[in-house]
Amino acid sequence: MHDENRIEGRNAVIEAYRAGRTIEKLFLLEGPAEGAMQTVLRLAKEQHTPIRFLSRQRLDQMSETGRHQGVIAQAAAFHYSEMEDLFRKAEERKEDPFFVLLDQIEDPHNLGAIIRTANLAGAHGVILPKDRAVGLTAAAVKASAGAIHHTPVVKVTNLARTMEDLKKRGLWFVCADMAGTPMTKLNMTGPIGLVIGAEGSGVSRLVKEKCDMTASIPMKGEIDSLNASVAAGVLMYEIFRQREDRS
Amino acid sequence: MHDENRIEGRNAVIEAYRAGRTIEKLFLLEGPAEGAMQTVLRLAKEQHTPIRFLSRQRLDQMSETGRHQGVIAQAAAFHYSEMEDLFRKAEERKEDPFFVLLDQIEDPHNLGAIIRTANLAGAHGVILPKDRAVGLTAAAVKASAGAIHHTPVVKVTNLARTMEDLKKRGLWFVCADMAGTPMTKLNMTGPIGLVIGAEGSGVSRLVKEKCDMTASIPMKGEIDSLNASVAAGVLMYEIFRQREDRS
Repeated sequence: MHDENRIEGRNAVIEAYRAGRTIEKLFLLEGPAEGAMQTVLRLAKEQHTPIRFLSRQRLDQMSETGRHQGVIAQAAAFHYSEMEDLFRKAEERKEDPFFVLLDQIEDPHNLGAIIRTANLAGAHGVILPKDRAVGLTAAAVKASAGAIHHTPVVKVTNLARTMEDLKKRGLWFVCADMAGTPMTKLNMTGPIGLVIGAEGSGVSRLVKEKCDMTASIPMKGEIDSLNASVAAGVLMYEIFRQREDRS
Repeated sequence: MHDENRIEGRNAVIEAYRAGRTIEKLFLLEGPAEGAMQTVLRLAKEQHTPIRFLSRQRLDQMSETGRHQGVIAQAAAFHYSEMEDLFRKAEERKEDPFFVLLDQIEDPHNLGAIIRTANLAGAHGVILPKDRAVGLTAAAVKASAGAIHHTPVVKVTNLARTMEDLKKRGLWFVCADMAGTPMTKLNMTGPIGLVIGAEGSGVSRLVKEKCDMTASIPMKGEIDSLNASVAAGVLMYEIFRQREDRS
């Protein structure tokens, strides 16, 4: 099956960067970089693109054209927005900002379902880290069921640093955490960033340290965690409910 | 060919053992066992399960989910529960019955995620129609993350007729419906059956006619529906919240 977001060959990848496309991941032939490869490396560094170095055999296996020249790029299937787009969305609706931050979400279906829920639960946008997360792949875009056309998604280099910046603009952060305060006992009505981590391992330590509150979803059963997109949905709708009650 | 008694993935197999299922044969990746694999090996030894060690290639060929994590279990025939098991679960907990009925859910991942959420949100069981719904496939079992071993699932011939029978036993039925009453405005604290339909088309007409109430999830965005398992999760947790508030 052809993936139209896979770009192969040095010049094609350089052109993609110069045209402003978001490269989510770069696969390069291991070994010394020469000529045009140095240009690729420089562009990747400027854009903070995560790079994986692979053997020729692995690159040959990945290649669809058979002419990768040591470079295969995975481009985003949809364009990312800027942080200001999220603030603008909140301002347009005359609402306090409500952003959803995803830490270590690796399943594109979960990402798509979360963007879909964010759209319907009244969040103004979704924030993803460059590393340790899936990007806007074709599967994620499809699972968003059209929400990606309305709900802006921003990609940031460092989630913890972004949270620091957003705190200066008035946001409070609540982390989803199984050991947190039951969600209905928290006040989540102000300008808020909801941080969702990976199933099982949860939000990473550095990110959790930046949170002002931790929220748990009450659980009565025998197993230990909800699906990440279901957990995100339940928390987003609790925030929705609290905001509606207040207004 | 699909085999409904094949369990794949370390956690799913461990949960199956802990829930007392009989594993007839275990297929493990050859090589040193680490982490959760040692737990699998210990449980297999306790239960005297015959083990075969296979290469990754062989396991990949056997796998139906593509995510076996080095473990595939062949379980004794999975049994659906009886309706009485659901009532017994409610009685044991001294709670009003809270059942989840699924109409036309065809995606095994959605089914699994719904069973998982039902377990954690305090529902006493899940009811599926024999036709027009996916069954307990390997993919559904895996997506339930172990919940299937704790939350009984009943399969019925005719969902509408089953609802008639359950009404005689005191249940009220609330259908998820985009045109329904906002969920927070309803009283869903008594003995309840929550009916979830397919994404888009919703609950079928004959089933909807048996419902006492229709509940909608408030939506603020531009798109028109949530993922079925997210919608089910939000509604189940609204019921959970109302019951906790009352008690």
